Amino acid sequence: MYRIRTGRFCNIHAFTVLVVALLIPASGASQTGEVSEATEACLDCHSSISPGIVADWQRSRHARVSVDDALLKPMLERRVAPSGFPDEMRGIVVGCAECHALLPDKHEDSYEHNEYEIHTVVSPVDCAMCHSKEFEDYSGNIMSFAHTNLTENELYLDLMSSTNGIYHLANGVLHVTESDDVAAGASCLSCHGTRVTVERFVTRDTDLGDMPFPVLSGWPNTGVGRINPDGSRGSCTSCHARHQFSIEMARKPGTCSQCHKGPDVPAFKVYQVSKHGNIFSSVGDEWNYDAVPWRIGADFSAPTCATCHMSLLVDEDGSVIAERTHKMNDRLDQRIFGLIYAHPYPSSPNTTVITNKAGLPLPTELTGESASEFLIGEEEQSRRRETMMAVCKSCHSASWVAGHFDLLDKTVQATDSMTLAATEIVASIWQQGFAEGLPHGGNIFDEAIEKKWVEQWLFFANSTRFAAAMAGTDYGVFANGRWYLAKNLVEMEEWLSLQTRISE
Amino acid sequence: MYRIRTGRFCNIHAFTVLVVALLIPASGASQTGEVSEATEACLDCHSSISPGIVADWQRSRHARVSVDDALLKPMLERRVAPSGFPDEMRGIVVGCAECHALLPDKHEDSYEHNEYEIHTVVSPVDCAMCHSKEFEDYSGNIMSFAHTNLTENELYLDLMSSTNGIYHLANGVLHVTESDDVAAGASCLSCHGTRVTVERFVTRDTDLGDMPFPVLSGWPNTGVGRINPDGSRGSCTSCHARHQFSIEMARKPGTCSQCHKGPDVPAFKVYQVSKHGNIFSSVGDEWNYDAVPWRIGADFSAPTCATCHMSLLVDEDGSVIAERTHKMNDRLDQRIFGLIYAHPYPSSPNTTVITNKAGLPLPTELTGESASEFLIGEEEQSRRRETMMAVCKSCHSASWVAGHFDLLDKTVQATDSMTLAATEIVASIWQQGFAEGLPHGGNIFDEAIEKKWVEQWLFFANSTRFAAAMAGTDYGVFANGRWYLAKNLVEMEEWLSLQTRISE
Amino acid sequence: MYRIRTGRFCNIHAFTVLVVALLIPASGASQTGEVSEATEACLDCHSSISPGIVADWQRSRHARVSVDDALLKPMLERRVAPSGFPDEMRGIVVGCAECHALLPDKHEDSYEHNEYEIHTVVSPVDCAMCHSKEFEDYSGNIMSFAHTNLTENELYLDLMSSTNGIYHLANGVLHVTESDDVAAGASCLSCHGTRVTVERFVTRDTDLGDMPFPVLSGWPNTGVGRINPDGSRGSCTSCHARHQFSIEMARKPGTCSQCHKGPDVPAFKVYQVSKHGNIFSSVGDEWNYDAVPWRIGADFSAPTCATCHMSLLVDEDGSVIAERTHKMNDRLDQRIFGLIYAHPYPSSPNTTVITNKAGLPLPTELTGESASEFLIGEEEQSRRRETMMAVCKSCHSASWVAGHFDLLDKTVQATDSMTLAATEIVASIWQQGFAEGLPHGGNIFDEAIEKKWVEQWLFFANSTRFAAAMAGTDYGVFANGRWYLAKNLVEMEEWLSLQTRISE
Repeated sequence: MYRIRTGRFCNIHAFTVLVVALLIPASGASQTGEVSEATEACLDCHSSISPGIVADWQRSRHARVSVDDALLKPMLERRVAPSGFPDEMRGIVVGCAECHALLPDKHEDSYEHNEYEIHTVVSPVDCAMCHSKEFEDYSGNIMSFAHTNLTENELYLDLMSSTNGIYHLANGVLHVTESDDVAAGASCLSCHGTRVTVERFVTRDTDLGDMPFPVLSGWPNTGVGRINPDGSRGSCTSCHARHQFSIEMARKPGTCSQCHKGPDVPAFKVYQVSKHGNIFSSVGDEWNYDAVPWRIGADFSAPTCATCHMSLLVDEDGSVIAERTHKMNDRLDQRIFGLIYAHPYPSSPNTTVITNKAGLPLPTELTGESASEFLIGEEEQSRRRETMMAVCKSCHSASWVAGHFDLLDKTVQATDSMTLAATEIVASIWQQGFAEGLPHGGNIFDEAIEKKWVEQWLFFANSTRFAAAMAGTDYGVFANGRWYLAKNLVEMEEWLSLQTRISE
Repeated sequence: MYRIRTGRFCNIHAFTVLVVALLIPASGASQTGEVSEATEACLDCHSSISPGIVADWQRSRHARVSVDDALLKPMLERRVAPSGFPDEMRGIVVGCAECHALLPDKHEDSYEHNEYEIHTVVSPVDCAMCHSKEFEDYSGNIMSFAHTNLTENELYLDLMSSTNGIYHLANGVLHVTESDDVAAGASCLSCHGTRVTVERFVTRDTDLGDMPFPVLSGWPNTGVGRINPDGSRGSCTSCHARHQFSIEMARKPGTCSQCHKGPDVPAFKVYQVSKHGNIFSSVGDEWNYDAVPWRIGADFSAPTCATCHMSLLVDEDGSVIAERTHKMNDRLDQRIFGLIYAHPYPSSPNTTVITNKAGLPLPTELTGESASEFLIGEEEQSRRRETMMAVCKSCHSASWVAGHFDLLDKTVQATDSMTLAATEIVASIWQQGFAEGLPHGGNIFDEAIEKKWVEQWLFFANSTRFAAAMAGTDYGVFANGRWYLAKNLVEMEEWLSLQTRISE
Repeated sequence: MYRIRTGRFCNIHAFTVLVVALLIPASGASQTGEVSEATEACLDCHSSISPGIVADWQRSRHARVSVDDALLKPMLERRVAPSGFPDEMRGIVVGCAECHALLPDKHEDSYEHNEYEIHTVVSPVDCAMCHSKEFEDYSGNIMSFAHTNLTENELYLDLMSSTNGIYHLANGVLHVTESDDVAAGASCLSCHGTRVTVERFVTRDTDLGDMPFPVLSGWPNTGVGRINPDGSRGSCTSCHARHQFSIEMARKPGTCSQCHKGPDVPAFKVYQVSKHGNIFSSVGDEWNYDAVPWRIGADFSAPTCATCHMSLLVDEDGSVIAERTHKMNDRLDQRIFGLIYAHPYPSSPNTTVITNKAGLPLPTELTGESASEFLIGEEEQSRRRETMMAVCKSCHSASWVAGHFDLLDKTVQATDSMTLAATEIVASIWQQGFAEGLPHGGNIFDEAIEKKWVEQWLFFANSTRFAAAMAGTDYGVFANGRWYLAKNLVEMEEWLSLQTRISE
């Protein structure tokens, strides 16, 4: 006999559901709150033109709760902090027009559509009208600069062009052509974000006659550092997918996996083989992902990504264990995503300001030493680690937590050492002229042996560190971990040795 | 406090469930409809001999609905289109005997079993008795020729033998032995399908005394292009797993992942890191996977594989957005699974008829030019793309969809260029005699450098294209994507350069 | 309209839930049974200090059922077999103190904590107080020796040191430093288990004043072969995660995936792309994972890892199909995890006793011949295979099962042949002095070409075998399967050939 999937303590909820079922009419549509006249107009056509979008929105909290009502919630439960939102929005729920017709003067992509001024690309500035705290946090988040930090760094641009560039063979020699912006949008910038600009406006023949539409370059895109037509940075829909904008979805690890699963940053894969990920996969369908604040133990029994890194957490009594933040590294003392080595987090989300002693736009020297003046200091590092440890201690003893961070710190040291050895080999290769690198002003990422060096830190050292940080061992051993750190290194040494022999 | 997992608009359903609970008896068994005498006989023994099979069938729609009743459904909801099925089946549900004792004369593996003529291997011809439309669609589906297209193509056979063959070292040199059929069944043919034949009949001592059973070669197998003892192609259970034959299962992406997850065709992995996959993993357990037709928005809020490629989709009003098809490429204008380059889909599911200008059994030349006469034309390509775009537009604006396909097209071009460069290098290697290839009539897939060339198109170009097609970026960048396209290419160039140097 | 996720036959359950909802008060806490005075004292503080731990425990069966009550269950349903547990535990549920204050004299890490003698590391000996059968089974399980078998084998230690060791470049040459114990804990020993010892006791300043705590080395760890401070082997929490100790979790494949997903032992990945894994992912959320005994068909419709390898299985009538075992290889006739070749399972869980004819601590010769005297014989192999086949036959016909095992056996032979060829090449390399190996007494795992040889058996042969064993084809072909077995082999041959040429 199959059983109903219920949480073990939720019987009373089953009762509530029943009572509610007896009192509330059946239609889904009737559950949406009062919508504005403008939104009503949108829905009139788009219910049939874009049924998926409308149904999605109907499921959203936006469709059911007005901002006024949202403001009646107790402080810890409140999800909005309006920054001067228009009086017209009082009493109505947040529908199509409330976002797509907001602040028309600010939006370069604004256009007249059935007598309304609307824009396609809703930006963080629009969202900030009600969610000012999240906007502010996110503006200080290094992810909001993901486009800028990548595309305005000479060294990273070399990495991009040697990855995305198109190669042609001419006279037996490979030549690389710069890839166009479109390619970048399907590659690095898919996660980092494109620059979205209005190319032109066109008139299209629709069921309702000729209508103007903007043609956007860098579109579609929901990268975290997207530069919007209004100049703002980021895309809230990176994680809060349109048009449910569901906190449940953002709190589940699938969201983060969209950009954090590859060999360069295998956070999600590590999570999956961790005890936390195992518990999530086994019994996570019984948890409450909607609760604000999020009660450790009562609402869930193992963390998702959001739990440790972002969410407002309280204990059974409602005492705050960690404050909500949309500055993703607020609980992280060091950046284990190595560039080229692990290092304390940059002080500013804009990392294009960083120059190391050697004049390179990197947060460390090629020897591993930190470019300290651009990075957070020890005090801030301690504060962040303590914040994270407080989360850990809700379920783990102090000695468990201390042991865990000791493992992480030792692992970071070990991977940095393995990267240093590889860097010394590639430096020797450059020096002996077996590859064109730093001394020759060449692209340091485009030759076969250089790519092996890149993999040492970008794949294997990163993977090993993430595995330690989140206790998902596979990715620290045979799955892109220590096995490959060692193998890659001895292969690099062998390559250099072969070059030396055949050059003699 | 845990909550019950319910859809957000389903309160009335909770109520319905309650009422139903009060009216319907508890026993699962009582829910199966009237079974035939023959099926009754099967169940008598097999309930205890094969409890898993029987319980599975009890959960199936087959166990609850007779074909007559199924025919009473409105046209769009109807799942059956009988082609002269026997009168005996009227009024009874589809049980064991209705499939395993059908058309005994057509089944080479038919044998007497407890006074009934039954066969082990139920084939598409059996299923077609009630599901004629699906049978017809599938017969035009390239997957139905998956066995034939692979095993009757000289070039692909070379790829198979150099992959599955067993190597021995003799006098310091590797020799490859043809692998046996059994090995192929655990390898390529596990997905492509084996040829199932009756080797002989044996008598086995059972609890009920001596009984005859067929010994089948190529068994077990559920590959999509399986050649059955009755000569038919395919296995409906590839996707509709026995014995629930659940549409829910076939619509969920795990089914497709069985054969579409590897580095050669990482469709499922790409889906997982796409926004669609994220939404499915986050809230997909609240969707309705059983509804026919499938209502976009109402039944689900993001597509699974089946949604875009196969299912009958309607909007809120029941207007058809896309017709159901079991011809999997009916909404695909090009085959991005490169052989060796992307190309328009073959016109016939039987690709053994294709010969390119160079005389090779390939849909393109080695330069990338299409073998056009064997492939669909531009008009058909347009029709298919428009069908797919109509699905996209249910949830995305026209400009979003146009931008997406622009990204895909540019990505296809880029990956074909990267493949061309690799092909030119390997051609040069053959020409200079550093490997035995086309000019020498050798197997072009069996030497180390040739295998690198294969990976360029079979792994890295394919992965990059799938990543663009389904917006799962990782697999277009560092996870078998552009990073490897470039790395593999410069390594191939370096290999050639080394050979040249040490040969001087 | 969304539907409620219910099993298809569970309407009566919905009714039950409702009735229960009307009768039972809402509070979760009230559902825990009577706790001991000592546990009450723990909960007083830890409810707020460690809310996650306490909430987890509240969800556990331990919190609801006393051992006396557990003993009232019919034999097949019984989960406990007490071995002289203390009288004080009669009538009370199993709370904090019942495990953490048990047998204080046996625990080196025992210390006074708020007037109770408690220990941090609960060991299998503690669990055995109520679960003696599981303890006994597990003691004969090779996994309980995972730490010992790895760290007390000279050859495996070489593999560990060349994987975990930290490399430094000195005078242009790589040198490896032994890694410290901490690194091993984040690497191999994370799964194999550390040796946990009490380093010292410290006094910490807490909210309740100064309190003593042990400082443990090798902590935290939940590896399967952990050596505990009391000398016992293993950690039940490896699979039964604290503090729910849920059988549901242990039965779900996510648990096994923590250590069985990497390229060396990709069991979970193979399962995911198998038909079994597909069914689990599609409809597995409707199954009953708590039932003891576990009824095939009624409780689930496809196996998880536990089903085939461990669980007590019965048919509809309650007849036993397979007995429960915590000796994981009790249904496995051969170890397909190759060291270096597949072989019959070792007779003793302690494999440090094994020495092959060549004097190496390996279960086979380097030629593949079994070190038979240390391995189970044919009779025991037959018994184990028959046990497994009985499970298969609950859902598959005899001819299906026979065909499946034929595929597996042929695959094992093929992969062993591919390993033999690679071993002969590396032996030739050692002999010719191109690498320092067995003849020179060197580490046979630390040079680039040796690492390719390791990958032949540890990654590619293993993956191919697991793919055949569990019918998840991808991992037997292009995903670390036959494609790589062949590619790696011809690359090894090419490497040897290059060395020969440039040495001339």
